[in-house]
Amino acid sequence: MITILINTGTELLLGDVLNSHLSFIAREIFPLGLRIERQTTVPDGDVIRNAIAESLGQAEIIFITGGLGPTTDDITREVTADLLGLKLRHDPAILRAIEARAARRGFRLTDRVARQADVPEGATVLPNEHGSAPGLYLAADTMTKRPHLFLLPGPPRELHPMFRAWVLPILRVVVPTAVTVERRTFRIAGMGESLVEEAVGAPLLELPGLELGYCARPGEIDLRLLGEAATLDRAERIVREKLGTAIFSTDGSELEEAVVKLLTVRKQTLAVAESCTGGYLAHRITNVPGASAILLAGYVTYSNDAKTAMLGIGPRLISEHGAVSEAVALAMAEGARANSKADFALATTGIAGPSGGTEEKPVGTVFIALAAEGEPTKVERRFFPDDRPTFKELTTQAALEMLRRRLL
Amino acid sequence: MITILINTGTELLLGDVLNSHLSFIAREIFPLGLRIERQTTVPDGDVIRNAIAESLGQAEIIFITGGLGPTTDDITREVTADLLGLKLRHDPAILRAIEARAARRGFRLTDRVARQADVPEGATVLPNEHGSAPGLYLAADTMTKRPHLFLLPGPPRELHPMFRAWVLPILRVVVPTAVTVERRTFRIAGMGESLVEEAVGAPLLELPGLELGYCARPGEIDLRLLGEAATLDRAERIVREKLGTAIFSTDGSELEEAVVKLLTVRKQTLAVAESCTGGYLAHRITNVPGASAILLAGYVTYSNDAKTAMLGIGPRLISEHGAVSEAVALAMAEGARANSKADFALATTGIAGPSGGTEEKPVGTVFIALAAEGEPTKVERRFFPDDRPTFKELTTQAALEMLRRRLL
Repeated sequence: MITILINTGTELLLGDVLNSHLSFIAREIFPLGLRIERQTTVPDGDVIRNAIAESLGQAEIIFITGGLGPTTDDITREVTADLLGLKLRHDPAILRAIEARAARRGFRLTDRVARQADVPEGATVLPNEHGSAPGLYLAADTMTKRPHLFLLPGPPRELHPMFRAWVLPILRVVVPTAVTVERRTFRIAGMGESLVEEAVGAPLLELPGLELGYCARPGEIDLRLLGEAATLDRAERIVREKLGTAIFSTDGSELEEAVVKLLTVRKQTLAVAESCTGGYLAHRITNVPGASAILLAGYVTYSNDAKTAMLGIGPRLISEHGAVSEAVALAMAEGARANSKADFALATTGIAGPSGGTEEKPVGTVFIALAAEGEPTKVERRFFPDDRPTFKELTTQAALEMLRRRLL
Repeated sequence: MITILINTGTELLLGDVLNSHLSFIAREIFPLGLRIERQTTVPDGDVIRNAIAESLGQAEIIFITGGLGPTTDDITREVTADLLGLKLRHDPAILRAIEARAARRGFRLTDRVARQADVPEGATVLPNEHGSAPGLYLAADTMTKRPHLFLLPGPPRELHPMFRAWVLPILRVVVPTAVTVERRTFRIAGMGESLVEEAVGAPLLELPGLELGYCARPGEIDLRLLGEAATLDRAERIVREKLGTAIFSTDGSELEEAVVKLLTVRKQTLAVAESCTGGYLAHRITNVPGASAILLAGYVTYSNDAKTAMLGIGPRLISEHGAVSEAVALAMAEGARANSKADFALATTGIAGPSGGTEEKPVGTVFIALAAEGEPTKVERRFFPDDRPTFKELTTQAALEMLRRRLL
């Protein structure tokens, strides 16, 4: 079924907000055999009308996001109803739900929110459990050649739960179940894109009916295979044989999830000591539900005093070798492990920039250490001369991968 | 000048990667008076040809991202040259630059990268300092009615520096300088969208020629004003009078930047003690260049033992009140301040979920404390019953805002 996504919002076209809807919706509908054929972003206002009108003739399913809020630039509900010749009726139950939510959270409401209780005739109301504006569903109508239309809220934290709770169950009913194409994604750390292709590209291209894609992210490559199950099974055997333990995820999970899972299964614990990554390593690990069972402590020792006070690193060691050094990385990891009594400790110290580099240790230099009981502490010197967020991303990626390899 | 953005990449339409190009490019070109009129995402393959062909007749500037890499699904360069009837010629200087970059970073190259040195005749090569594939610029041609065409790499960390170093200077030459519309964005913490509109909506709507937009983000509202400078001056006076110190940023900077700036100016320092936010608060602060001057230490005390060992919190206090309690939040902030000798300390303890809630303290409950010398430690109880990332975002937002208000 031809599926089109229209994202409305001047804020998207002005760049004030990142559009995450395409990514989210595409992943959610793929298991139903649906792919977004085209995604378009249009500004608020009457251009929405044109974009919807254009798609009405082409699509079998249209998702429209944004423009359902209480402010004057939110007109998706009104434009869609007008375009389809549907009247809006006021639904007092919606207003009551909005009022109850506001009371629970201690919000005060203005008169304007009442607009969010207007519903085009024949539409199904999709409750919004994380915001005030409900979503709306208009079923396809063969008489008027209307496709399935979903009007959804713009904020991701409202759209995501609504999509899972209400939109997917409707799609499961209306989409014919003739799905044969599946997707398998292999996430690979510690190898560049062209090395991954060199390892698996040629044998995979020989498999008929296999669609192959590579995607480079900071510190990882995603290898995506699309095809029928039997083809994918053959492809997967090749990928696993060639890449083996370099694959850290096949279910979309992150590198930090792989690490938390390995530690949980082994009933082992971790501490992290961070200088240049400044809490990002702990943040990634604590994004994983259940991390509390394995992460004992995080030490964000940005200053030299903190390195001494929190990790017991002698000021002389720091002044002799520099805070960014193999010796300090090693002492940080060992200090974190000793203080927290964790089985493993990771430490990072480096120069994120933009300033602070020297000729011997330019901006981007980083030392990553892994301490474990009864074995020598390992230290890797890496070089990530990138902007600050990418530097943090690459450093934490390398640290997590260092631990993951140790745990295999 | 009509400007269209085409993003290519099956990975975008499958949702494997978030499309951040629209947001980035829109912000970069706005000061030149350019807005993206339409943005479309299309899959890899021949659909790229149609999307480019369609836009050739409508746009005066076309940006195309993605598909310049070394793998077999990267065909933007070839398709564009073919569509415009341009031959590709091999540029040995590009290949040398790619080889030098790989050597510097210790990468190994495959034969395939040579494709990235192919250039359509008449194109200007835009050097890629953060990746191997260079960008390409084809100037507008009135004879063939060709618009300005920019072929840019897909990875943001390659595209962003290239755009600033090479694309913007070209645009400054080719775009007529008749810019009168400006943008001002006010970022506001601690108020809901409808309250912001209630405060400023009516008087702003009375100003002719003012385009008004609201954007709700976790823990903040962005108020966007577009118009001529004189109108914006009048609007800004209204906004500042009505919202005052609730505005934390007018230059696009983040709440953490406001906090780091205030501390830097006051020559004061900060420590953070994090339970439920697990390092995210320290991460946000250390994302700000110069944070090392103000952030002394971060304590990620996920476990009760860590709260005792790192912050000196008595086990009895924890067992009596619970780890998620006003008393423990207060002790965490005071312990962090005492240990680090910082002027201020922020602490968070809460239930991020999905499990761990009780009737009295359901999932989403969080206590945020702020300790400062010579004054009673403040504790706020908040309730963010959201998914884990949103919970962390809202909690750190509230903590940073608590400190910002104290520093005003």
